[in-house]
Order: sequence, then C-alpha cells, then structure tokens
Amino acid sequence: MPSEFEIIARHFAPIAGTGGLGLLDDAALIKPTPGHEMVVTTDAIVAGVHFFADDPADTIAQKALATNLSDLAAKGAKPVAFVMTLMLPVSPEAPVNDIWLSTFAAGLGALAVQSGCALIGGDTVSTPGPLAISITAVGELPEGRMVRRSGARPGDHLFVTGTIGDAALGLKLKLSERDGDIWPLASDHLNFLKGRYLVPRARTSIADILRQNAHAAMDISDGFVGDLIKLVTLSGCGADVLLADVPLSVAARAAMRHQPDLRGVALTGGDDYEVLAAVPATRSKEFQMQCLTTGLAVTKVGYVKAAPSAVRFLETDGQERTFRTGSYVHG
Amino acid sequence: MPSEFEIIARHFAPIAGTGGLGLLDDAALIKPTPGHEMVVTTDAIVAGVHFFADDPADTIAQKALATNLSDLAAKGAKPVAFVMTLMLPVSPEAPVNDIWLSTFAAGLGALAVQSGCALIGGDTVSTPGPLAISITAVGELPEGRMVRRSGARPGDHLFVTGTIGDAALGLKLKLSERDGDIWPLASDHLNFLKGRYLVPRARTSIADILRQNAHAAMDISDGFVGDLIKLVTLSGCGADVLLADVPLSVAARAAMRHQPDLRGVALTGGDDYEVLAAVPATRSKEFQMQCLTTGLAVTKVGYVKAAPSAVRFLETDGQERTFRTGSYVHG
Repeated sequence: MPSEFEIIARHFAPIAGTGGLGLLDDAALIKPTPGHEMVVTTDAIVAGVHFFADDPADTIAQKALATNLSDLAAKGAKPVAFVMTLMLPVSPEAPVNDIWLSTFAAGLGALAVQSGCALIGGDTVSTPGPLAISITAVGELPEGRMVRRSGARPGDHLFVTGTIGDAALGLKLKLSERDGDIWPLASDHLNFLKGRYLVPRARTSIADILRQNAHAAMDISDGFVGDLIKLVTLSGCGADVLLADVPLSVAARAAMRHQPDLRGVALTGGDDYEVLAAVPATRSKEFQMQCLTTGLAVTKVGYVKAAPSAVRFLETDGQERTFRTGSYVHG
Repeated sequence: MPSEFEIIARHFAPIAGTGGLGLLDDAALIKPTPGHEMVVTTDAIVAGVHFFADDPADTIAQKALATNLSDLAAKGAKPVAFVMTLMLPVSPEAPVNDIWLSTFAAGLGALAVQSGCALIGGDTVSTPGPLAISITAVGELPEGRMVRRSGARPGDHLFVTGTIGDAALGLKLKLSERDGDIWPLASDHLNFLKGRYLVPRARTSIADILRQNAHAAMDISDGFVGDLIKLVTLSGCGADVLLADVPLSVAARAAMRHQPDLRGVALTGGDDYEVLAAVPATRSKEFQMQCLTTGLAVTKVGYVKAAPSAVRFLETDGQERTFRTGSYVHG
C-alpha cells in the first residue's frame, strides 16, 4: 500500500477545500459567517456492520459523508466542511488498492461538491480490522437557531420526509440473496431497495425550512419507531402515530405483499436517513408547502401528545401495535 | 454489551461539556470567540497499531485525546472541544466491558478538564475488528494567526520541546520484553520510557508562545527526522541539523549505552508528540525564555537553510548521517 503521504497527495488533496490548506498541515481552519454558529456532528461506518466490504468504493464514501450531512440537515444547518479518518485494512485480500482509493475519492469529491461540504483534513491509518470511515462534519446556522431533538410540544404534527424502511429492506434483500433467496419483485424494485441501503440521500434542502417551522427534528438513522420514541421522550411528551400514514415506497409495498412481516422490518430497521420533524399545527400547511417547493415529499404521520413517554403506534382499526425494538430509550 | 444509548448516558454524558447538549442531540454547537477562528484536527488510534489492546483504558483514552491536543498546540491554538468516534470490538475476548468503559471515560474526562477541551459529541459503533478511537478536536486562535508547517525561512533556528525518541524506545522496550528480552536499565528508566509511549503529553502551554514567535511549527508524531524534513521541505527550504544537540532523556541515553543502534530508533521512531518550531534568529532568545517561564524545556537543534529540500543531519565530526526512514516526503 502507498504511504499515507502518497495517498493524501494523489487522492485526497485534489478534492480538498481551501480551508484544508492542501491537506499539508496538521490542522484546518474554519470560521462561521458573522451572526452564525457552527454545528458539529460525527458518524462512522464499519465494513461488515454498516456496509459490505465489496460495495462499490464510491458508494461507501458517499454513505460515510451522507450520514453526516443528514444530521446537519435535521438540525437546520448548512454544510460547510468535514474531516475524515480512513482506517485501511492491512489484510492482503482487502480490496483497498490504488484503483479503489481513486474511486472512493471520486465519489467523496462528487458529494462534497454537490453538498457544498469541503474536505479539509483527516487521518489515514492502517488497521488489522475491517475498513472503517469516521467523518466529522461541520455546518453553520444563525446563532441560537439549531433545531433540537427535545423541542416538540403537545399538539405538534409529526412529519417524515421521503419514504420509510427502504434501506432496511434493501439490507434484508441483500442478505436474502446471499442465502439464495431471491424475492419475486420487479428488478426495478429490487434495485431501488438496494440503492437506498447503499447510499442514503441526505435531505439537505430541508434545513432552512426546518429552522423556520419546526419545534424539533432529528434524522432517522436507527429506525423510525425507535427514533420517534427518542424525539418525543426527550421532549417530555408522548405521541400518537398512525401507522397507515407512514409513507412507504412502491417497492417496499411490493416487498411486503410478498412477505407481510417485512412491515415490521421497515418500521424499526435502520439507515433511513429521512428527517423526522415536530411542527406546530399552525405551521403545518406552510411547512408542507415549503417542502413541496423544494421537491421533497413530507408526510404527516401523527401528533405529539402531552402524556410523557406514552407513544402509541396505531393501526387503522385503532388497535395499538407494539414493537420489540425501538424502546431501549426507556431502559 | 450495553446499548450505545446506555454507554453514552452512563459513561460519557457525565463528562460532556455544555456545547454537547448532554450528548442527547445529533450534533453539538460551537462558536469561536469574536476575532478568532477555529482550528480543526483529527487523529485516530487503533489497537495493535498505535497502542496495545491491554493497555490501561484510561491511558488509551488519554492517548487518543492527547495526540489531537498536540496538533492544536503546534498550530498555536487553544483547545475548545472535541468529538469522539469509539469503535468497540464485538469479540467476546476483548476487554471492553462496563468497568473498562468507566475507566476509559474517567481518563478521558480528566484530560478534557485539564486541557479545557470539552467532549461535545461522538458516535459509538461496534466493529468485528480491534478497538479504535478517532477524535476530532477543535481549537481557536486569533484570526489569521495559525502557525503553519510551511512558514520556515532561511536563517530560522529549529527548536524541539522536551526530549526526542522516548516513546519509540518505550514501544521497542515493550516489544522486547514480550520476547523475553529485558533491557539492563534501572526500573525508573524502564518505566519512564514505557510511560512516554503510553500517554503523550501535549505541549499545550506552548501554543501562545508559538503564535508570538514562530514562523512555522508542527507536532512530531511520525519521527523527528521525517517530520523535520516535512516542515522544511514544505517551507521550500533546507536545513542543517546537529544530531548531538537533539535532546535525549537520561533514560534514552541509558538505553543507547546498552544498545547503540537505538539512537536511530529514537531519531526516526514515531509518537514523540513534541513540538518542532522554526523561530527567526531575532526571536530565538525570547522564545526560549518564554518557554522556560512555562516550565517547558526547548532545545535548538539546527538551522533552516535556503537550499530547497537539502536537509543534512550532521554528527559532531561534520559527517552527514543518512536515515532509511523519514525521507518518504520526497517519494
């Protein structure tokens, strides 16, 4: 493997932002726009845990960055810059070579440009373990305006962006195929679900709209059910969630017709990287219209209630559904 | 193993700073003092590569943070806050349990308080590989005043803090002992060398003095010889280094009497976390006196020369010494 110096000079310096000083120094410089403060978030992915070691290198890079961009979006922050720790396996069978690195850097650079989030530094180390990437991203927003997890109030409407469960189904599908179990779905649907697992799409366009309208927000990374419980519990509230209203993609619904218990996987599985927001009833219409204007679908899935920690997931017949996962926040 | 939520609530939330929002949100808030900008650095350590998996948990935590504090110090920045990615091995023989985590958090919290660098966020993931820790630290300094690697000018004096090579010898010693080879040194000396490998001491007290006096600086993490070549080469200069002037600890000199070829290890081995600085001749005395006032020893080891990339390491008889490592910056 080339040295850290060579890897940086060949693959990462060309995609770095100006604050990164050519990646030639020990540190990078960054400064918020006057009247703004910085939002810092960090997310790591590990081969065999959060992605497959043989996933395309560019999608691995984009997943590592997108999970961080998703956090910034949910907080109402505009992406500014990021640093990356790259842990490269020493194992000779690992697919990390010069071509791999160049594909990885191309994918990373494309998303960095697209999201306005510049690579400004990092650390490259070798590991006897699997490939792992840890990214710390910095965004900015007007002072005092970060959208918290804990700000939901009784009466707020609960919204989610996009569709829920696709990535969890995509993962399940990949594991099934590995065991020789091919789901009887159209190839478009199979590819859609796998694609949603491979590269999350951070909902960056929603950041300003959240700041202007939402009481609370978070990105859904550990499953819709569990993350919703987190948000309302931290806000000292409860909620009623209408499960029939949870937005599901056409592909996800096709998969559930094939295997009805996949609905539970979709509702509790991780890796959605959609945004969950609590919006006051008076701003609910405005919020939806503003999202629509940016081309992003949002769907109302329930209501915040005063009763602390009482979160009910309701079927259309009014029956409450309980989930095995997603309740550890009480533990 | 407890859930990420439990680990954070039990071990890390109690040591977190206010910008971390109780570690209950997706992100942390940070803002430079007016007239200042932020310096961002990131450094990772991996068990089996940068430390031993059975090192004490508190020293592992402190090494992870100190390597980052060392970068901030060398740039002239005051530590402010950090985020941490903790990759915990799933392997049942790994020593990471509740007691381990509590010792780790105690060590981390102690250094965070001592250095004024608050934990404000992070990510905890599991890995089939070894324990690994990636920290991104943020410091601040007056705008435009960061001490670069590339600012050295012909005539500058080259200084290093502390003593060189102790950590590399400490590592060599640990590996020798593992093979049953005990070095015939006083136990004080053995412990000193091992301690220097175990926990680097970031030279935080030098930050302001560097900003006021130095043209260039970096922390020595990849070996004295190699890092010195980096600094002067990036500055478009050369250097003459007087090897006899390189400061060595009593313990290091005792080890070299036992085994003369350890001198090469000391000069090229990594993990010093001392600061290398290029100071204009006119500020040289003042720089030394200011360092002395904070109790930190600095030693002049050479001179920056105009000849680009011509770095000579000279013995007392004027003979030039070449090193196998430390020259990859040319590669």
